[in-house]
Amino acid sequence: MLKGQEYTQLFQVTDKVYNGFIETFKDTNPLHTDDLFAKEKSFSGKVMHGNILNGFLSYFIGECLPQKNVIIQTQEIKYNLPVYLNDKLNFYAIVEDVFESVNTVEFKFYFSNENNKKVAKGKIQIGII
Amino acid sequence: MLKGQEYTQLFQVTDKVYNGFIETFKDTNPLHTDDLFAKEKSFSGKVMHGNILNGFLSYFIGECLPQKNVIIQTQEIKYNLPVYLNDKLNFYAIVEDVFESVNTVEFKFYFSNENNKKVAKGKIQIGII
Repeated sequence: MLKGQEYTQLFQVTDKVYNGFIETFKDTNPLHTDDLFAKEKSFSGKVMHGNILNGFLSYFIGECLPQKNVIIQTQEIKYNLPVYLNDKLNFYAIVEDVFESVNTVEFKFYFSNENNKKVAKGKIQIGII
Repeated sequence: MLKGQEYTQLFQVTDKVYNGFIETFKDTNPLHTDDLFAKEKSFSGKVMHGNILNGFLSYFIGECLPQKNVIIQTQEIKYNLPVYLNDKLNFYAIVEDVFESVNTVEFKFYFSNENNKKVAKGKIQIGII
């Protein structure tokens, strides 16, 4: 992986992803499960769990890179806008730095929605193992 | 929530959690699914996805706090040691700061394993909505 290399990937928060996340992690907070509660809090409907995006990041690192011998070392994410059920998200990542001496690669990334608004952004550092 | 308040929670990376994560997010990288590959990379066996811990964080914020009207704004995590299938993890979090003017609360957290080693640590900032 070389500095400046870019990656894109389409993700969708389908019913299957949403239900799978809840069945796996049991986070049924009303913001994520109750449209009325979410609307009272001035969202358009129930808000998807932010950590669904971190699951997508896991897929990106584990499955979309040119090499499989990788492990996540650190990651950070800021959530800018709510994501709703069935939203299609464009994921964009760029290799920000390669530290060959310690076999690490740092990416910057963001997810944007169908209105071209960034819903989340962050950094992720991986090790080459 | 008040500065200095502490929370603890026990989590386990059961087969159900592990399989649920893979079924939901499709990250079948060999490090996470192939004991031989992981051992060649000098791990004791297949390494659990780091983002399983972020799923546990979702549960903590959504379900374990004294109030439900919360949303994650930012989060960061550093992975220190591998987590293996069936590992029991002690989660510890402390309220590091409360910013009443903007209705945000910042936690520091870590996960430790049964050998009392910290496997991951980080920060998470939530908004009160």
